[in-house]
Amino acid sequence: MNFTGAHILSISQFQRHDVEQIFSVADQMEPYALRKRVTRVLEGAILGNMFFEASTRTRVSFGSAFNLLGGEVRETAGFESSALVKGESLQDTARVLSGFSDVICMRHPQQGSVADFAAASRVPVMNGGDGANEHPTQALLDLYTIARELQAKGRTIDGLRIAMIGDLRHGRTVHSLSKLLSLFSNIQVTLISPKELALPDAIIDEMRAAGVTVSVSDELNNSIANVDIVYSTRIQEERFTSKAEADLYRGKFRLNQAIYTQYCEPNTVIMHPLPRDSRSDANELDCDLDNNPNLAIFRQTDNGLLIRMALFALVLDVVDKVDQFAHDVRWYNSRQQ
Amino acid sequence: MNFTGAHILSISQFQRHDVEQIFSVADQMEPYALRKRVTRVLEGAILGNMFFEASTRTRVSFGSAFNLLGGEVRETAGFESSALVKGESLQDTARVLSGFSDVICMRHPQQGSVADFAAASRVPVMNGGDGANEHPTQALLDLYTIARELQAKGRTIDGLRIAMIGDLRHGRTVHSLSKLLSLFSNIQVTLISPKELALPDAIIDEMRAAGVTVSVSDELNNSIANVDIVYSTRIQEERFTSKAEADLYRGKFRLNQAIYTQYCEPNTVIMHPLPRDSRSDANELDCDLDNNPNLAIFRQTDNGLLIRMALFALVLDVVDKVDQFAHDVRWYNSRQQ
Amino acid sequence: MNFTGAHILSISQFQRHDVEQIFSVADQMEPYALRKRVTRVLEGAILGNMFFEASTRTRVSFGSAFNLLGGEVRETAGFESSALVKGESLQDTARVLSGFSDVICMRHPQQGSVADFAAASRVPVMNGGDGANEHPTQALLDLYTIARELQAKGRTIDGLRIAMIGDLRHGRTVHSLSKLLSLFSNIQVTLISPKELALPDAIIDEMRAAGVTVSVSDELNNSIANVDIVYSTRIQEERFTSKAEADLYRGKFRLNQAIYTQYCEPNTVIMHPLPRDSRSDANELDCDLDNNPNLAIFRQTDNGLLIRMALFALVLDVVDKVDQFAHDVRWYNSRQQ
Repeated sequence: MNFTGAHILSISQFQRHDVEQIFSVADQMEPYALRKRVTRVLEGAILGNMFFEASTRTRVSFGSAFNLLGGEVRETAGFESSALVKGESLQDTARVLSGFSDVICMRHPQQGSVADFAAASRVPVMNGGDGANEHPTQALLDLYTIARELQAKGRTIDGLRIAMIGDLRHGRTVHSLSKLLSLFSNIQVTLISPKELALPDAIIDEMRAAGVTVSVSDELNNSIANVDIVYSTRIQEERFTSKAEADLYRGKFRLNQAIYTQYCEPNTVIMHPLPRDSRSDANELDCDLDNNPNLAIFRQTDNGLLIRMALFALVLDVVDKVDQFAHDVRWYNSRQQ
Repeated sequence: MNFTGAHILSISQFQRHDVEQIFSVADQMEPYALRKRVTRVLEGAILGNMFFEASTRTRVSFGSAFNLLGGEVRETAGFESSALVKGESLQDTARVLSGFSDVICMRHPQQGSVADFAAASRVPVMNGGDGANEHPTQALLDLYTIARELQAKGRTIDGLRIAMIGDLRHGRTVHSLSKLLSLFSNIQVTLISPKELALPDAIIDEMRAAGVTVSVSDELNNSIANVDIVYSTRIQEERFTSKAEADLYRGKFRLNQAIYTQYCEPNTVIMHPLPRDSRSDANELDCDLDNNPNLAIFRQTDNGLLIRMALFALVLDVVDKVDQFAHDVRWYNSRQQ
Repeated sequence: MNFTGAHILSISQFQRHDVEQIFSVADQMEPYALRKRVTRVLEGAILGNMFFEASTRTRVSFGSAFNLLGGEVRETAGFESSALVKGESLQDTARVLSGFSDVICMRHPQQGSVADFAAASRVPVMNGGDGANEHPTQALLDLYTIARELQAKGRTIDGLRIAMIGDLRHGRTVHSLSKLLSLFSNIQVTLISPKELALPDAIIDEMRAAGVTVSVSDELNNSIANVDIVYSTRIQEERFTSKAEADLYRGKFRLNQAIYTQYCEPNTVIMHPLPRDSRSDANELDCDLDNNPNLAIFRQTDNGLLIRMALFALVLDVVDKVDQFAHDVRWYNSRQQ
């Protein structure tokens, strides 16, 4: 695809080549994210960071990514009822707000809302999550993390063996990652969940049609024995009809260091889209894993910054100029000590 | 008036010459708002964007205008109860916050609050709306839009024929625009509203005293036959005692393409202060007008950016330096394709 | 202490030498805070301004301080429930958010939360207030104000005579200031409060052990007769079990111009941590003092900006570079007229 000026709405926009291009640019962003270098390439540009649903993590990640390229951020950090209560359409909101910035990130609780918004926007729009529908930058950062973790072992995504665990029915990130994996070769996916929270059949069928080997299990220990990646997820309590119903499943398939040591191959990588539920009745990834060097969950969020920087650089067509407007960092850098 | 260091609180501060000066500077801001050029003239300056009442549109417009001049924005996006609950006076708040920035924009639900705040502030204050009282930048952007739309036809504001439609009793923007129009010559105003929502007599008297020709109607179609501008407004539901009372008037005087084609002169310009109510029972400007090139409602919000940039440049006395600290835009510009 | 890369969590981190170093750097920041000069030393750096409890004043002060050094600010302006409702630990939040910025300021309602957060953060963390526990930058700005007010009279902190008035039991700022004063010599402290709101014995004992002369009174007028500083505080209504209980004490020990003139030495300096309660039944500092040149309450908040700039410059190790990346201000400066 041609990224220049494009909306980033769904992972179904991407071919394998596009994903590889994003990852290549993300690699190029690392010195800036690690504060070894500062670039001012987007000095004067404005991101409209429109979060119509609260999300500190994703909102700040998009905003920081834009700042790291030298741009400014104007934002909304939650639902402000004023204009919508007055009956304004999403299309009107898009027409107005797109006059104020060079690119817009948007999160909105309603499925499809970001695409509707983008259709009326005069500047490129990135989907920061539209309800249960899409959250493409999360899927990209997950796959980018997989690629980097495998690369450290001299491997590529092709040939990946991954176990996905937990609430596979409601987990938006699992759905999107499954679709992205279908772009690669020789992928083996093991799906581990209670039967009631299984990955939807349509997604399984799609993966199989693309050549992915899919197996299904409702048991944790032996199913994680021969994989490169364990991808754990949270029970999506907010998608259940009651907390009581969610509680039926909370705390199933907990991974801890003892299980990891006994069942996993050495150096199996542990991932999670975060937030992980660390309350004692949930604890899907036990805190005793926190010092395990294969726990990649914070490398995932760090990689999210690189992916978002890469998408901004691609959409605003400044990939080739990032290094040109760069200089060394002047301040103390905690990351290099 | 001397703009340098001045508070911008009310349209009654302005003489015709002042309005023309603001418009002239706004014209000069266009290459920056269109991202043809970047200026860094206010690099290091801080706007305190203090919105003690939610308003995404106006808040982001002020903030983006300041960013487009190179400045930084610190802001409050809604009522944070802490200090006021503890009994702090608005004067104390002003003394404190004005130590943190170079200029302040303020919106507050209470009439007169912004002027009280400004009296205690150590830096210039701009009124972003104080309840039902004033919203001077909205009135300026409306009149600036009128000027630009007429200019495209080789005309000036003098000689303007305008119809104002809807809730003229509560519409703050109509009140302010009426006063601004009184500064010009040979103005003809047609007021179209239910009798209960008529423009207050005091404002009509003031216009007539200034030489404006005012006519009143409670019928839409024939009243918009001989005007340059149709200025439609929303039923200000929040100013009525009940939704039921507001519903009595909602949906009166809807303008759509059929009525426009049958009754209006060719190229009559359609304006609205936004947000327009697009729900089916309201729909004061039908969506079938959206492709009408004379629908100027989004040009209005774009012009708002220019007006706010102009006021910042005037108040901070950098009009002559804007172009001096400028360079070309480095990124993809959706607006120029 | 070595400030480079350090967390700033508690005043108990500081020795006298450290406090003097902070104050010396704060002095150096004044031309930038007064907008005589602009520095870009932190251009490209990002502050994560994480306020999980509303506080317009302190949040904007931290943010503006960082902007004045040339840096960018990403922020949260109140409790966004999303991640915590999903059971995320403060440690996970810290690990994630510290990947997005170069330094973090944090306010959180829970005692000890900021230190917990800092322990997991990969970048330096500054405590912006953790419940009733600590608010170190407030204590520093109070003491810095005392130093500057005394310096104007050719004096130093050693030998200070200060009266602290009001709700000494709950007032976090009084507790912290008391501890900081213990680092200096020949300090005389007079504590004036209702018996029920007295300063905790532990703090009094600590001061006396450090050589401070402490006297206690429940009467205002004669107790403020021989002091350099009157430090008044607000009844911390939110710390009482009911408003009715707080009301028992509200309005005690009001200082006004008449009392000041009759009882205080000439040029006694009046301080208050703000917000002051200006409602008629409270009014701990009467508005008739507003034109008294010895009312230092707004100089306190201005000094807060200098203290926070100094801490950023120290922690990020750019003190020696601030002037190197500086240039003159280009815009109208209200402060110099």
